[in-house]
Amino acid sequence: MGSKKTKRRKAAVTQAPRLRLSDRLRLPEGPVDLAALSTSETVGFDGDKADGVAALAALDDELSELQEKLFAHGRSGGQRSLLLVLQGMDTAGKGGAVRHAVALMDPQGLAHTAFKAPTREELAHDFLWRIRRRLPRPGMVGVFDRSHYEDVLVTRVKSLFPAATIGRRYAAINRFEERLATTGTTVVKVMLHISKEEQRNRLLTRLDRPDKYWKYRRGDIDDRALWEDYQRVYEIALERCNTDITPWHVVPADHKWYRNWAVAMLLLEALREMGLDWPSADFDVEIERGRVLAS
Amino acid sequence: MGSKKTKRRKAAVTQAPRLRLSDRLRLPEGPVDLAALSTSETVGFDGDKADGVAALAALDDELSELQEKLFAHGRSGGQRSLLLVLQGMDTAGKGGAVRHAVALMDPQGLAHTAFKAPTREELAHDFLWRIRRRLPRPGMVGVFDRSHYEDVLVTRVKSLFPAATIGRRYAAINRFEERLATTGTTVVKVMLHISKEEQRNRLLTRLDRPDKYWKYRRGDIDDRALWEDYQRVYEIALERCNTDITPWHVVPADHKWYRNWAVAMLLLEALREMGLDWPSADFDVEIERGRVLAS
Repeated sequence: MGSKKTKRRKAAVTQAPRLRLSDRLRLPEGPVDLAALSTSETVGFDGDKADGVAALAALDDELSELQEKLFAHGRSGGQRSLLLVLQGMDTAGKGGAVRHAVALMDPQGLAHTAFKAPTREELAHDFLWRIRRRLPRPGMVGVFDRSHYEDVLVTRVKSLFPAATIGRRYAAINRFEERLATTGTTVVKVMLHISKEEQRNRLLTRLDRPDKYWKYRRGDIDDRALWEDYQRVYEIALERCNTDITPWHVVPADHKWYRNWAVAMLLLEALREMGLDWPSADFDVEIERGRVLAS
Repeated sequence: MGSKKTKRRKAAVTQAPRLRLSDRLRLPEGPVDLAALSTSETVGFDGDKADGVAALAALDDELSELQEKLFAHGRSGGQRSLLLVLQGMDTAGKGGAVRHAVALMDPQGLAHTAFKAPTREELAHDFLWRIRRRLPRPGMVGVFDRSHYEDVLVTRVKSLFPAATIGRRYAAINRFEERLATTGTTVVKVMLHISKEEQRNRLLTRLDRPDKYWKYRRGDIDDRALWEDYQRVYEIALERCNTDITPWHVVPADHKWYRNWAVAMLLLEALREMGLDWPSADFDVEIERGRVLAS
């Protein structure tokens, strides 16, 4: 755990306070060792849970305004959009991040998709077919709860496809995402990283509370038995698809409040980066004012 | 304005405080006179803007919990869903109601559609074809910003279809909505009712503020010139499609804060009415707890 944490801290000292959270959580190039990445550190945040909840709420105004600018941009012929890709082990909090962080945004500008096991129709197409159909249109913020990465994760752990088929998908994903980026979609890829112990706690909570029974699937335990296998295929996917243009971010997710704040911050930073202004008027303001007053 | 207001007040006195907002805003049977319905009264709410904003925020917890119950119900094989249909003149606040009231709900359980002028492909089908494709799946809350009602409103004002074609649509809509209701979808139909003066103020605001230019369309003034025609076709649609099973609600919408609170309350009441409980466990809790602890 030491080396990555040290690297992050050092970077913070050197470049703080201007270092963006996305720089701090961005996965460095090269081989990935998930066990060496903290699941509980609150990278880039000084404070406790109450501070984190308040800090999340404090992002609302700017996030709302920037999202509305993106939406306005799309309505005015602009081509930009934003896509948040959420991955993580069961109980990592993909749904929670949507419920608490993504929910700060206006539903009118959101396009949320939770990808499940592919249907027969989806399996009859290339693995990116169903993904393309759910990409955000211009002006929109797309959110993928699971994504095309499942096609190199669960499929690889369970050998659902020949190894050679899966092996070709990493490059296909990189080409796909690069094309997205060059056609106006900012892709923010987030892996919510929890410890195996935290997963156990969360599964037990689901069994303790009748209002959480519906979230429990017996199959979760079968996947949990494959924890190490999943971590390994995650490491491969993270390494091979961690490009300059669409890098991976690993968010320590044992603390739900930190996870929510971090996801909201990553969205906010991506929107800031777009540098969008309100679209200018495509009409003569004075003439139109006269028309309204006369009507 | 007198008679309808009096009727509402009398009903309130008789049945208060147990009368639901949906009963108070529900359009009575029979001919509709929109000019007689207040656009500024805060029906069912005692208080000013600050109270209204606080009251809206106070609905968050119950609304969230009931929406999650509906979502859980859908995940567990249940067939119930909720559909909010928002109609109103330009600037009436359909988007604002989504941004402020619908936004209290979890994006994971929302399916929002803003219907625009139909595409060529959509026109090649029956007018309900595109509507059916956007209906909420079990467990979901669908939101229609404009809807199949446009097919008896703008189409009628502008004579885009033969009168006989449009004339047949009211009964088609009633059959369609009745079928929705009997197959598990609660349909909440809301007309946001503003005055012509308030529309003028809102259009002028769009012209005064560069952050609102993008919302202004020159065509809005052409539609405004047809204000009386629109009111008349609304009255016909409201009367003919105001059924017991899917009644219309007319929300006075000159006050944005009241509109937001009222829409959230109507959603909340509809969810309460479903009377859903958390799904029971389809597994043996003790056995599963043992499996988790052993994993």
